Amino acid sequence: MRKMSTCFLSLLLLSTGLFAQESQPLSAQLNKVKLEFKLDEAGRPVYQVDYAGKKAIKPSVMGFELANDAAFAKDFVITSSQKSAHDDSWKPVWGEVSSIRDHYEQLTVHLKQKNAPFRLLDIVFRVFEDGVGFRYTFPKQKDLKHFVVSKELTEFNQTGDHKAFWIPGDYDTNEYKYTTSTLSAVDAWVVKDKATDIVVRVVPDQHSVATPLMLKTSDGLYINIHEAALVNYPAMQLHVDTKNFGMSASLVPDATGNKAYLYAPFSTPWRTIIVSDKATDILSSKMILNLNEPSKLATTDWIKPMKFMGVWWELQIGKSGWNYADSQDTLDAKGQLIPNGKHGGNTANVKHYIDFAAKNGIQGLLVEGWNVGWEDWFGSWKENVFDFTTPYPDFDVKAISDYAKSKGVSMIMHNETSGAATTYERYLDTAFKFMNTYNYPAVKTGYVGKIIPRGEHHDGQWMINHYQRVAQKAADHHVMLDSHESNRPTGLHRTFPNWMASEAGRGNEYNAFSDGNPPDHETIMPFTRFMGGPMDYTPGIFKLKGYAAAAPDRQVHTTLAKQLALYVTLYSPLQMAADLPENYDAHQDAFQFIKDVATDWDDTKVVEAEPGDYISTARKAKGTSNWFIGAITDENSRVTNIPLTFLDKGKKYIATIYGDAATTDWQKNPEAYVITKVVVTQATVLNLKLASGGGAAVSVYPATAAEASKYKAYKK
Amino acid sequence: MRKMSTCFLSLLLLSTGLFAQESQPLSAQLNKVKLEFKLDEAGRPVYQVDYAGKKAIKPSVMGFELANDAAFAKDFVITSSQKSAHDDSWKPVWGEVSSIRDHYEQLTVHLKQKNAPFRLLDIVFRVFEDGVGFRYTFPKQKDLKHFVVSKELTEFNQTGDHKAFWIPGDYDTNEYKYTTSTLSAVDAWVVKDKATDIVVRVVPDQHSVATPLMLKTSDGLYINIHEAALVNYPAMQLHVDTKNFGMSASLVPDATGNKAYLYAPFSTPWRTIIVSDKATDILSSKMILNLNEPSKLATTDWIKPMKFMGVWWELQIGKSGWNYADSQDTLDAKGQLIPNGKHGGNTANVKHYIDFAAKNGIQGLLVEGWNVGWEDWFGSWKENVFDFTTPYPDFDVKAISDYAKSKGVSMIMHNETSGAATTYERYLDTAFKFMNTYNYPAVKTGYVGKIIPRGEHHDGQWMINHYQRVAQKAADHHVMLDSHESNRPTGLHRTFPNWMASEAGRGNEYNAFSDGNPPDHETIMPFTRFMGGPMDYTPGIFKLKGYAAAAPDRQVHTTLAKQLALYVTLYSPLQMAADLPENYDAHQDAFQFIKDVATDWDDTKVVEAEPGDYISTARKAKGTSNWFIGAITDENSRVTNIPLTFLDKGKKYIATIYGDAATTDWQKNPEAYVITKVVVTQATVLNLKLASGGGAAVSVYPATAAEASKYKAYKK
Repeated sequence: MRKMSTCFLSLLLLSTGLFAQESQPLSAQLNKVKLEFKLDEAGRPVYQVDYAGKKAIKPSVMGFELANDAAFAKDFVITSSQKSAHDDSWKPVWGEVSSIRDHYEQLTVHLKQKNAPFRLLDIVFRVFEDGVGFRYTFPKQKDLKHFVVSKELTEFNQTGDHKAFWIPGDYDTNEYKYTTSTLSAVDAWVVKDKATDIVVRVVPDQHSVATPLMLKTSDGLYINIHEAALVNYPAMQLHVDTKNFGMSASLVPDATGNKAYLYAPFSTPWRTIIVSDKATDILSSKMILNLNEPSKLATTDWIKPMKFMGVWWELQIGKSGWNYADSQDTLDAKGQLIPNGKHGGNTANVKHYIDFAAKNGIQGLLVEGWNVGWEDWFGSWKENVFDFTTPYPDFDVKAISDYAKSKGVSMIMHNETSGAATTYERYLDTAFKFMNTYNYPAVKTGYVGKIIPRGEHHDGQWMINHYQRVAQKAADHHVMLDSHESNRPTGLHRTFPNWMASEAGRGNEYNAFSDGNPPDHETIMPFTRFMGGPMDYTPGIFKLKGYAAAAPDRQVHTTLAKQLALYVTLYSPLQMAADLPENYDAHQDAFQFIKDVATDWDDTKVVEAEPGDYISTARKAKGTSNWFIGAITDENSRVTNIPLTFLDKGKKYIATIYGDAATTDWQKNPEAYVITKVVVTQATVLNLKLASGGGAAVSVYPATAAEASKYKAYKK
Repeated sequence: MRKMSTCFLSLLLLSTGLFAQESQPLSAQLNKVKLEFKLDEAGRPVYQVDYAGKKAIKPSVMGFELANDAAFAKDFVITSSQKSAHDDSWKPVWGEVSSIRDHYEQLTVHLKQKNAPFRLLDIVFRVFEDGVGFRYTFPKQKDLKHFVVSKELTEFNQTGDHKAFWIPGDYDTNEYKYTTSTLSAVDAWVVKDKATDIVVRVVPDQHSVATPLMLKTSDGLYINIHEAALVNYPAMQLHVDTKNFGMSASLVPDATGNKAYLYAPFSTPWRTIIVSDKATDILSSKMILNLNEPSKLATTDWIKPMKFMGVWWELQIGKSGWNYADSQDTLDAKGQLIPNGKHGGNTANVKHYIDFAAKNGIQGLLVEGWNVGWEDWFGSWKENVFDFTTPYPDFDVKAISDYAKSKGVSMIMHNETSGAATTYERYLDTAFKFMNTYNYPAVKTGYVGKIIPRGEHHDGQWMINHYQRVAQKAADHHVMLDSHESNRPTGLHRTFPNWMASEAGRGNEYNAFSDGNPPDHETIMPFTRFMGGPMDYTPGIFKLKGYAAAAPDRQVHTTLAKQLALYVTLYSPLQMAADLPENYDAHQDAFQFIKDVATDWDDTKVVEAEPGDYISTARKAKGTSNWFIGAITDENSRVTNIPLTFLDKGKKYIATIYGDAATTDWQKNPEAYVITKVVVTQATVLNLKLASGGGAAVSVYPATAAEASKYKAYKK
């Protein structure tokens, strides 16, 4: 006890004293955001961030420890520094807006160690209007070629016991429910131990959290910590000092405990601190995308955002199965698998989905369980499961490919690796050639289970490189990528615009096979998981109760209108209509919103937002004058007011409002909704009533003269 | 101290008591070799081996421990057992003899555990005239599907403090010098610490040795312990109980400490105990080959044993280099590597070797350092080094391929992986297609350095599977394989007859870059490393002193005649003529033996042998009446008498004897030799005088009438 007190005191002294004992710091500022940098008396790099004169990040040290080598953490001197300004804009291949402004002040600091071998380290800060990004660069230098990072020392010290929206710092999964607590209450092990619905959980540090981490201070500052351009480096998690509210980088290790194998010159991923006094600014931030490199693809005209359906939800809810036979040992006299009659990915069923998708203008169709191996794919750390090209006997890939083509539907390949990345790499060329042969323009990859190479983790350097290799290979074959159970994104879809989406978070699927996602889940995800890039969340469940054969009482924790709103709230250029055809046929009026909603946008307005409570978003569909609005709330019903100021002045629009009914309640009456069609203008303020666990979706398009006279003007 | 004494006593009691407390054992016997099996009172499987009524292996337990599971080691009952006899023969695609007799008594024991889940384990013993092989089979059973071996318990308990010829039980290398000591004196760490010429050394157990382990008892029994058919399982090493002379299996672990990931039904590799009172029987044993599965290749007519030269020794001795530039950072203004002018694998030099090989009837040519990446390939656990298809600018692969073809020389590809097996697997298809495109019928692979997947070892299950994948891929492309730094062989060349040779031992190359191999080295290797299969030892060095630029005093620890003898002593169907063309041109008379000697044999007679001292071998070249004899000795000069009883009765032969001169001595005068051509018959007994570190090579072919009259009859 005495020891701990001493430690506590010395840390406090350290934290407050860091900036006090040295000369004037270097600084850079853009509007309200100010960055200061200096070396402390031990020659350690230290930075801090202010927002509007308030401390956002307290003095925090920077640096590294290398394996079997001298520390790269102190005894530095500043040899020089430069400042520069940058302001331009660029156009993403697809996204939430058509043009992105990249506006920052840059401070580059060149450091050198005082003692032999006089090593060099550069730190580059970029100060944006909405935060700070910084990265380390190990310059080319005589005595540093290959090196191994054993620890990154970067701190993100907080000014108080902020409210945090967090999941555990797990090496292998991001699929936890979010916990909302103060920093002092962070206990990753309690959460991990409860999360029995997640297959692989590895959380060595009890006080660790994953990024993107969303924080809110007691005086109303919103702070988001993550990273950008995670390339050839492990994912950064954060160790939380629950006493002093300090946080420090915690890199996911490899099988031997090392973190990163590098070669100078090398630049680390950017560490990002987005900060504002408005929650909507956090969601609107393009800082992470700006910190990524431009597209490295030669052509991008083959990249086409789309909606898709799947022989998928019926597998998740147990209506049919991935596997063709009950077990790999269920063989007939000829040694062939004996079918169990419950296989979802069969030709007839797939054609049924193709018909439905074609009829309803849904462009894509995913089929899982199409290939041999699902009888024994899971949970055994088994290396040779799938070969990615051998269909089950009842899946006629040629016939299906031809039929889909004749109907104008794009097939989406499914490559589940069961975590055996080594096996997938062995077959990668063959797998992508197979997709080209059978006209699959997109692939969903999966990494369920413990990783092979055994001892590696989903979020370690080797796997980070693997995911990128797959994205590159997909690009080489003009295939779009949707990676599941991969690392959470860090804006790399700017560099690889064919890497459309990742899962890497707790998607709607948990409502199928576990106790699901709580009503506030989707109000937190845009502030956390989505900060780095699109997620294949799979919204659009209409049958919200009684869908799971094995658990009749199971239900999705939203209303039907909220499921529609998610198509706007949760951005993905590959967006699923996840429910079964028959459930959409039962609500074709509501399904119209899914048919209409875009997957690529010219503009986005986050109208109002509070993490854990609500989000209202309006987006303008690419190349049109149509807007789509999504508003969601948590377990509390609320009213959201949405001024349609973004509409063209003087024009009339038809707004179709898909709202919760007066009696709607996510628990008792989730599937009740009301559809209203009205005339709106730029002056309209929509007043949308969201039920408990509810939402509202609105489509807005220019009215024809006939429509303008047919429908009534909107009234609150 | 007290604790250790107690432990010692109880172990002694255990060892002697095992067989005393149970009923009559099961047994199988063939000639002098007798195997007995029973369960001890704890229900543990126990076996023992006798030879000619003498104990060869004392009672030794068998079994496994599984990870996160009940032990698989005791509480067994015997449910049934079968005995059967087998006697037939088969023809290898190539080898030391043209036909191999497979003659054994088989005892199969079916075991079941007394308690739930009543698991099953079978043990299959095969008793040959020259020893015992046994394997475990995990039958298909309800409660054992996927399982993980954490420990194999198999013991090989010795009757006394035998003389052992051993190298450390290293997870990553077999390239140690052999130590000859008693079992009680085994200290692997002392050897490991001294072996600074080996790159990667990992020896966690101080009292561990590798197999094949050669033992000699004080009463003249020779015992060899190894394994056969190592498939989907880690290599077995042996932990030595230096007090009681017990030995137990020690499997090479993966990155997480597990040993093998298996699925029932599964059969382990065979554990082999070869035993005889004649050392020559050990060398003649075909037990390990017999315990391997027959060839699984559809065709084998493309597999052609051959001799080859290489742009290789000149790299090893520093005459030229693998790398094209001095460093990967040595770039010109266009970013291209600046050549250092010392690159051996250049088109002109390669053509020079092709000319020499063609002129001298050497079929193959290896070129190392032909491909981009050698500036930074080594020692940094670097993953992306080579792509296996990009030549250096001065290596014109098309021109070289065409030139070699025009001269009738086969190019041998070199695929060094620098231990990055993951990278090699990624490029494997492409690499082998490249070989097909450019007419390379063989490939030498290399695994220098720490393995990637990081944390895996050269001899663990994952890499064992990798080597086999490469062998299979090579077979698919009709390419012969010579794998270096891979696992020591276990007879798998029967199953994959395109897997011609491995290194996996301390080859002649150590004489180029280190203090080399002691004079007794090649008298031990046939009893150890070669027991599992051919080695690419690279004999044939003629310039035995003053060859190494960096170390003028360095010398090979043999005489020139012994280098010739090694072509017979050390069998490989890919056999190198390792020295430089100019060194062969300086001794064209001696080089004649290398030009003449075969690489595939109809018959082999081991005339006399003693591990660590001497070996004399005679072999009959495939499809001819020609014999070749090799006799070698250690540091002691000796005389070997070789009765030519294997020659056809009544025929006259010309024997060309390449022997040490009277003044020859490996240290002082190694390159002196005498060539004698004489007439011999079946009645001749060659009396060959071998110098210290010396040897003699003899070619014997039927004499024409002219030759029979021209040359004198052999006289002692």
